[in-house]
Amino acid sequence: MNAMTFEMFVELNQIVNKILDQKEKEVRVIILTHNGKHFTAGLDISSAAIIMKKDDEKTDDVDCARVALGTQKSVRILQESASAAEKARVPVICAMSGFVIGAGIDISSACDIRICSKDAKFTIKEVDIGICADLGTIQRFQKIIGNDSFFRELAYTGRYFDAKEALQQGFVSYVEENQEACFKKAYDLASQIASKSPVAVATIKQNIVYSRDNPVEMGLQHVLLLNMSMLQTKDTQRAVMANFSKSKAEFPKL
Amino acid sequence: MNAMTFEMFVELNQIVNKILDQKEKEVRVIILTHNGKHFTAGLDISSAAIIMKKDDEKTDDVDCARVALGTQKSVRILQESASAAEKARVPVICAMSGFVIGAGIDISSACDIRICSKDAKFTIKEVDIGICADLGTIQRFQKIIGNDSFFRELAYTGRYFDAKEALQQGFVSYVEENQEACFKKAYDLASQIASKSPVAVATIKQNIVYSRDNPVEMGLQHVLLLNMSMLQTKDTQRAVMANFSKSKAEFPKL
Amino acid sequence: MNAMTFEMFVELNQIVNKILDQKEKEVRVIILTHNGKHFTAGLDISSAAIIMKKDDEKTDDVDCARVALGTQKSVRILQESASAAEKARVPVICAMSGFVIGAGIDISSACDIRICSKDAKFTIKEVDIGICADLGTIQRFQKIIGNDSFFRELAYTGRYFDAKEALQQGFVSYVEENQEACFKKAYDLASQIASKSPVAVATIKQNIVYSRDNPVEMGLQHVLLLNMSMLQTKDTQRAVMANFSKSKAEFPKL
Amino acid sequence: MNAMTFEMFVELNQIVNKILDQKEKEVRVIILTHNGKHFTAGLDISSAAIIMKKDDEKTDDVDCARVALGTQKSVRILQESASAAEKARVPVICAMSGFVIGAGIDISSACDIRICSKDAKFTIKEVDIGICADLGTIQRFQKIIGNDSFFRELAYTGRYFDAKEALQQGFVSYVEENQEACFKKAYDLASQIASKSPVAVATIKQNIVYSRDNPVEMGLQHVLLLNMSMLQTKDTQRAVMANFSKSKAEFPKL
Amino acid sequence: MNAMTFEMFVELNQIVNKILDQKEKEVRVIILTHNGKHFTAGLDISSAAIIMKKDDEKTDDVDCARVALGTQKSVRILQESASAAEKARVPVICAMSGFVIGAGIDISSACDIRICSKDAKFTIKEVDIGICADLGTIQRFQKIIGNDSFFRELAYTGRYFDAKEALQQGFVSYVEENQEACFKKAYDLASQIASKSPVAVATIKQNIVYSRDNPVEMGLQHVLLLNMSMLQTKDTQRAVMANFSKSKAEFPKL
Amino acid sequence: MNAMTFEMFVELNQIVNKILDQKEKEVRVIILTHNGKHFTAGLDISSAAIIMKKDDEKTDDVDCARVALGTQKSVRILQESASAAEKARVPVICAMSGFVIGAGIDISSACDIRICSKDAKFTIKEVDIGICADLGTIQRFQKIIGNDSFFRELAYTGRYFDAKEALQQGFVSYVEENQEACFKKAYDLASQIASKSPVAVATIKQNIVYSRDNPVEMGLQHVLLLNMSMLQTKDTQRAVMANFSKSKAEFPKL
Repeated sequence: MNAMTFEMFVELNQIVNKILDQKEKEVRVIILTHNGKHFTAGLDISSAAIIMKKDDEKTDDVDCARVALGTQKSVRILQESASAAEKARVPVICAMSGFVIGAGIDISSACDIRICSKDAKFTIKEVDIGICADLGTIQRFQKIIGNDSFFRELAYTGRYFDAKEALQQGFVSYVEENQEACFKKAYDLASQIASKSPVAVATIKQNIVYSRDNPVEMGLQHVLLLNMSMLQTKDTQRAVMANFSKSKAEFPKL
Repeated sequence: MNAMTFEMFVELNQIVNKILDQKEKEVRVIILTHNGKHFTAGLDISSAAIIMKKDDEKTDDVDCARVALGTQKSVRILQESASAAEKARVPVICAMSGFVIGAGIDISSACDIRICSKDAKFTIKEVDIGICADLGTIQRFQKIIGNDSFFRELAYTGRYFDAKEALQQGFVSYVEENQEACFKKAYDLASQIASKSPVAVATIKQNIVYSRDNPVEMGLQHVLLLNMSMLQTKDTQRAVMANFSKSKAEFPKL
Repeated sequence: MNAMTFEMFVELNQIVNKILDQKEKEVRVIILTHNGKHFTAGLDISSAAIIMKKDDEKTDDVDCARVALGTQKSVRILQESASAAEKARVPVICAMSGFVIGAGIDISSACDIRICSKDAKFTIKEVDIGICADLGTIQRFQKIIGNDSFFRELAYTGRYFDAKEALQQGFVSYVEENQEACFKKAYDLASQIASKSPVAVATIKQNIVYSRDNPVEMGLQHVLLLNMSMLQTKDTQRAVMANFSKSKAEFPKL
Repeated sequence: MNAMTFEMFVELNQIVNKILDQKEKEVRVIILTHNGKHFTAGLDISSAAIIMKKDDEKTDDVDCARVALGTQKSVRILQESASAAEKARVPVICAMSGFVIGAGIDISSACDIRICSKDAKFTIKEVDIGICADLGTIQRFQKIIGNDSFFRELAYTGRYFDAKEALQQGFVSYVEENQEACFKKAYDLASQIASKSPVAVATIKQNIVYSRDNPVEMGLQHVLLLNMSMLQTKDTQRAVMANFSKSKAEFPKL
Repeated sequence: MNAMTFEMFVELNQIVNKILDQKEKEVRVIILTHNGKHFTAGLDISSAAIIMKKDDEKTDDVDCARVALGTQKSVRILQESASAAEKARVPVICAMSGFVIGAGIDISSACDIRICSKDAKFTIKEVDIGICADLGTIQRFQKIIGNDSFFRELAYTGRYFDAKEALQQGFVSYVEENQEACFKKAYDLASQIASKSPVAVATIKQNIVYSRDNPVEMGLQHVLLLNMSMLQTKDTQRAVMANFSKSKAEFPKL
Repeated sequence: MNAMTFEMFVELNQIVNKILDQKEKEVRVIILTHNGKHFTAGLDISSAAIIMKKDDEKTDDVDCARVALGTQKSVRILQESASAAEKARVPVICAMSGFVIGAGIDISSACDIRICSKDAKFTIKEVDIGICADLGTIQRFQKIIGNDSFFRELAYTGRYFDAKEALQQGFVSYVEENQEACFKKAYDLASQIASKSPVAVATIKQNIVYSRDNPVEMGLQHVLLLNMSMLQTKDTQRAVMANFSKSKAEFPKL
């Protein structure tokens, strides 16, 4: 069921960074998806145990404060990994099928665009094991869908919601017939984005993330600072000329 | 029609605190609802008059600045009372029927989950008596539903919207046939929430409220600080073991 | 197609301020609409070129830093003009038909209420000319509609969305049969708002804009500061008395 | 040595509120000082123990998370009490002699003006009992004196600093010969403040506290909102007329 | 005594903008000083009266809310004028002699560097006419000097402080023998600043103002965004080469 | 003269992390100092050139936007390295002699406590090579010393200031006779800090950094969240018992 270990989290982050750092072929958009029927069953139980120090080591001498400082360090690593998609220079499209449980919501919430197939089943599961989801869901979910009453019900009850509800509430943008069609849709969206100026797309992403978290006036000043250099790109000319000549613009890599 | 006096506001706050402070039976979720046909007709006219100092005392000697400082003090008390549900340690489910006018929107907006019966009629009425709603509606409504154009129309015109529109726009999560069914639905949701670890639920609520008001990165750091102690709860073990043995977990009170 | 020059932007701002400053007839609400079939085709190409310093002046001696400081100054002027509707003392209703492209989204996003006719076609077009929209769209769009996945798709792909999708996602509040009906609807809404106390409406607008950008608690304190003077208005008495006598309240101008 | 119990903290807050609420004689400034040789030896050990749940109750069954939620509640009460001076409507002058230890720094840091006598000895003592001061010192000290390197040395080492160093670094504004002279100086300052318009003084205090915590632009908007009502006071006329007639202005109470 | 009218405030702002906009000779630093013995006696009484609507117009029909909205508009104009120095692209050095009263503190606080002559006498005078200073002093003073206890005493009592105290507390950086020497010192500092790259100086000023108002991490991101274009300036090469050749670098105007 | 290359910056960060991560001997405080006469001459010219892309690669094809995005990435790495001391779990004491130029101010500003020897000479040098310091100085300097007029003079003119001025303005806490005495003083301070509970010291540091960047109320809530687990440490008992028995408390490592 694709449960995630601590190592898989760290690897997710590393892979995103490795993809973006490779010299030869430039990456302009990432599709985050899965092999097998299910997106993920969430954080693996044994990894969860390690993070929570729920192990044999816990003897009489255990000091709550020291355990807490250890938790702060290890959960912070998971948080940064779960935010990999948000920190990536390029947009990340998340294509999900089957179960999307716990950490699956955390990871997909950090992506730019979410789509799924009809069979997808989602749940903010953490409440059922007695903890508050701490890898991004509680922070981003309401800011992604707008509907706060619906979100809180999910967070407090851990109930499942299906593809139809996910579309209706805006958690996903498209629901496709099956996993294959879902990936195809992701690929189509990715192709469109990849055909645009990578300067423009990177600038838009930086400013979208900043604007979500700050007042409108600060968002305006942020894009102004970015565009002081970004508007000097030659991509604008390339785009305008391609438009005139009805051809497809070619943009150099970043 | 259940109009609210200044005293009722204060009492609402006191009751919430009293319920949460009682030693014997622990409260894990609160349902805020009403006797009689209507949720509330809003702030009682005579209480409103007192708050606005629109009384006989207003003579030639009245000093606008001193009246203003008095207003600051008394309206602040109402604001804190109207936010009682948001400040409560446990989730508050608001079940509404009939008229939900003015202060009724303020109070329900501060709750976690809102549901209503088919006959519910809502209005941000304050504009019709020449004032700006100052007890929470203007602050929370858009952050609850997402749709800003719809919200501003309601705030500027004071027009009524019904249960169907409230559901469509996400102000309520469920619309039930009648007041009885509405309360039943609230009770079902409450039962589900009450069966979860109170440590988890309290942590989730603290972090949801904080995350709504702060950038995602600060929300992540907030839950990290909370979970430094919360992840050390024994409720996790109780929950996991109940899951294995297919039994219902029993969690001690907070 | 109603493309906008740099001068038209500046003029838009000046007109809004001029309307609000006129002594004789007080303005209580503004409708922003257009002659001709289309709202706007966006920023005029030649104006865009000037702003981006993509002109003959660019010789070997050009200094990237100095160009950037020039851009900061001129784009800031456009930003302030595109925010004219948000800064106006009164609500602005935006009535759109035909193409609403690029800068058209910026300008309409800064309005209070948006409506359109069936034939309206919208696009966040900037990505197609290799730049990030910097006049308000990226900052306000998600905060207007709530649905982040939908918004990001539009921003990264520049795809068109029609009136139906705009209504469904909450970008517009009403879709009317044609341009005439759309203006009529705008006029009806405007009439309702104009019949309310201008003190109340101005206070609501100030607090809505502030509350969107700040935590709930700060929004509460903001309205409290405003209402220290606003609750002392005589409009409340006028409104209440009109209500009793079943007559229409007349409110003096601001 | 004037050690403070949990109850004394709560009482401090209650007394401040009681003084400000009394109807007959209006209070325009508060002097916070002490009987006996020492300002305070800090939080009483037995009270500290209770707050930290370092009691016999702590058995095998103790749940770290539940203890933490209890701590959050009880320390929050102390925090609010220690901030009593900052929340007071009127300025608070703190006159200190002898030992000012631990909680003494917390309480005096929340005052408006600090003075001391030559024999005063100060220390941020908490580090010496293995905890981080959580009642205001860490939050306010650097914002009071400006010198961050000096502040951090005090916080990490718990070393004493005397009246001379306190004056030099700006923690106190005046050092007087002895406790009596110190109180006299406090009284002189208080008399000057009490002779001013209470409307002006209350407005200044609200805006000083807000401006410390917010960007300059937001501080300007805050005072603008306050002055929308405060500038309508009749105290201005009283002050100007007294000035012309070389008399002392009499201002009515708030 | 150089009292300032409403018009002088507006003019101050216009002059700063006009100086910076002139095409022929580029301005790289501004010295703000005065003819005559005194910097300023503060806001002119008759202008103050107009702003506070303390005029004959105030009849029975006056509506406190409408007066307040008028105040908001006119005081906002003064605030923007009093912040002229802070908004200027170049550093502003303020050279003061004689009385610096009320609005004089507001205006000088918005400057980058302050110096004075021995005879200077300063006071935050507003409390003496029953109002809270609303043009920048309360917002900026503590952030300029660090010492909060000293600042609050000044704000609550309106007492004078002289050049020596101003130097000691960091309100001014240098005290010169007389007005002439003071201007000479200002000119020396200005000459040094004018010899630097105007790109570097403008960038430093933007980032200093931003960093004062925001967390360190946000200040770092702000300078990073600025330096994305600013580090591409050719001034760096000019500066380094001048350094090697022991000559004086010449930098083109912005 | 100890000029710093890009690699040395990265190494500084790595060393700090490596020290803190080692298992055997726990580190409780770090002293950052130097071999040789000078702290540092600042960023090495050739490293600076690489970062600013001022190399041969810059041909006709260079795209200002792409250079900018490269700068963003590489300067960000330097920023994170220059902040190594601030992010360290333990306090960092900076002991400086000789020249402390440019990047030297950035690095020392991120430390907790600064001391120097009599011969130390400091300068915010970046303005002299035509750039704005972007590694922490502009962000932290004013928040460290309080005196804004002094700070801005340094930043705009690049003038040297000596040990005496550094002490007077609070940039350093102590000035020692020579480099050896300076290190000895650093060691004494370090010894004192190392004798305290590492739980307490780590908590204080986290809260000091957070409180500098946030409103007082948020700082109070931050320490409350931290102390929910930190107050459960057994170090408190160890400290109190050592105090009673007049012995030295031994605290286990984190």
